[in-house]
Amino acid sequence: MNLTHIEHLGIAVKSLEEAIPYYENVLGLKCYAVEEVADQKVKTAFFKIGQTKLELLEPTCPESTIAGFIEKRGEGIHHLAFATDDVAACLAEAEEKGVRLIDKAPRPGAEQMMIAFIHPKSTKGVLTEFCMKKQEEEK
Amino acid sequence: MNLTHIEHLGIAVKSLEEAIPYYENVLGLKCYAVEEVADQKVKTAFFKIGQTKLELLEPTCPESTIAGFIEKRGEGIHHLAFATDDVAACLAEAEEKGVRLIDKAPRPGAEQMMIAFIHPKSTKGVLTEFCMKKQEEEK
Repeated sequence: MNLTHIEHLGIAVKSLEEAIPYYENVLGLKCYAVEEVADQKVKTAFFKIGQTKLELLEPTCPESTIAGFIEKRGEGIHHLAFATDDVAACLAEAEEKGVRLIDKAPRPGAEQMMIAFIHPKSTKGVLTEFCMKKQEEEK
Repeated sequence: MNLTHIEHLGIAVKSLEEAIPYYENVLGLKCYAVEEVADQKVKTAFFKIGQTKLELLEPTCPESTIAGFIEKRGEGIHHLAFATDDVAACLAEAEEKGVRLIDKAPRPGAEQMMIAFIHPKSTKGVLTEFCMKKQEEEK
């Protein structure tokens, strides 16, 4: 499996409006994009630090999985996303090695990425995502 | 606050012996160090991916804060550590901006680092660490 770096960390927050000032004013990071991902029922805000993005996730309705996460565990780090150049190959290799997949195939995510998740039951509790820029998928 | 990248992610696991094979055999990362940090009551295993380390944390006794974390929330991501060149300055700035500190001053951590934590009550649920190499502290 060819993972190059941590592409982003997904962080569940109740409110972008309340969370963004912490990241900007205390940590000194800059929010460079806010994007709604309708099919995941979240509004996202992005920051960059080194190679990695921090992706704040605010649920847009009570049925959002992020709303469920916050209700159960409170705000906090929700998932860890590794950058790769081949999401489908990562899924195939993970499945072959006994990992339970959430996504059977790459699907579109925020920021023009193709993404897929594997299940925290197979990853020692860390909800894990593989992702790559869409154009690499379409080569 | 001058944060350059994500230095590491702390990940709570029940057993390094069970977790290391997942990181090595499935994700293809290499465990380059195992270290016990007696005063934090953990045994740690380190992997590197891009700029960032993954630091697996296994509690060495039931009184370890990591044992408490696992009991309450299960295995998973425990904290987020930012690299800086001045941990004391980060603490001072955070405190001035109303953030609750866990450590009032930098203290030694694993891997020859000076570290300090700020409280998840002030960081939207993310237990956050600032860290730097010890020699930078001693300049």
